[in-house]
Amino acid sequence: MLRLYDYSDSGNGYKVRLLMAQLGLDFELIEKDILRGETRTGEFLRLNPNGRVPLLQLEDGTCLAESNAILCYLAEGTPYWPAERLQRAQALQWLFFEQYSHEPNLATARFWLRHFGALDPLRQALLEQKRTLGYAALGVMEGPLGKRPFFVGGRYTIADIALYAYTHVADQGGFDLGAYPAVRAWLERVRAQPRHVPMLPA
Amino acid sequence: MLRLYDYSDSGNGYKVRLLMAQLGLDFELIEKDILRGETRTGEFLRLNPNGRVPLLQLEDGTCLAESNAILCYLAEGTPYWPAERLQRAQALQWLFFEQYSHEPNLATARFWLRHFGALDPLRQALLEQKRTLGYAALGVMEGPLGKRPFFVGGRYTIADIALYAYTHVADQGGFDLGAYPAVRAWLERVRAQPRHVPMLPA
Repeated sequence: MLRLYDYSDSGNGYKVRLLMAQLGLDFELIEKDILRGETRTGEFLRLNPNGRVPLLQLEDGTCLAESNAILCYLAEGTPYWPAERLQRAQALQWLFFEQYSHEPNLATARFWLRHFGALDPLRQALLEQKRTLGYAALGVMEGPLGKRPFFVGGRYTIADIALYAYTHVADQGGFDLGAYPAVRAWLERVRAQPRHVPMLPA
Repeated sequence: MLRLYDYSDSGNGYKVRLLMAQLGLDFELIEKDILRGETRTGEFLRLNPNGRVPLLQLEDGTCLAESNAILCYLAEGTPYWPAERLQRAQALQWLFFEQYSHEPNLATARFWLRHFGALDPLRQALLEQKRTLGYAALGVMEGPLGKRPFFVGGRYTIADIALYAYTHVADQGGFDLGAYPAVRAWLERVRAQPRHVPMLPA
């Protein structure tokens, strides 16, 4: 059986859990508490030298890291991954945008606000920068979502799954989606997909 | 003809230029000086709302952003992109690692040191953090490169191209590769590939 090393509160992990639920894939979930350093132990670093979750372990023991690479692997040959070359590249464009321009701002702001009390001056200054860059990323999403229902090829793909993960909890990082109506309408469309599951168990 | 909007000193742009040289693809190069804000003009933002280079414009006018997505698009069906599903996922794992754990540290440190004089206190504190994280990323690369010639499937792929771009100029960001002999040997192997071109014209 597939094994997923994950941290429940991780949006990156949620991407993989959501796709696996929608694909109907069974998997064993192994919780690693990043706040307790459980992804930095010698044992875990042998599985992923980069010390991060989510990490997917295949049945032969091979480990695959990086949430968006795991999404691509699992989605290949399914309706969640475009069959056409340019659309695949466009989906990848959004996946790289998510990891470079979106997640480091929205997810990191959320993590700090949820898990740290008062921020030190460096983090406080960085938080303001992340606020600016995070809103810029939401602005980049608002444009295309005002014109089409999903990011690529008119249908729900892993590009939507990847961007949904931290956008739907943007408020937990102090982001207000009020000025992004197309993003909010898209969040509803993603939530309405068959076999959708929430980030954390109710 | 393919058109590449790029900034000569960008390692992200170099990835695309290197692959296109190795594939023997002709393209029109349009220089955009990011230091003069040329990627933030209204005209350019219509091509890429995220305001970044490299940007590949296809013959039908479609624009594709994100250096690593462009690499995947161009490499499909060529020896630079693995034909096997797990190897493709492993290549993507390294591409996402590059954009999340490597480039934001090595490339940003290099950019600041090359283009700014004295760093303000926030940037100085961040530079120290980037130093730590950048060396950690080099450590993650050192492990597998000590055991195999290239990152994926025993052959040179776009995973190598993506990671070569900012690793081979790591010294310009103040990184010393002395403690990473496997990385240094791999840089030589990449440089020895057929039709290799340097980052900047001699």
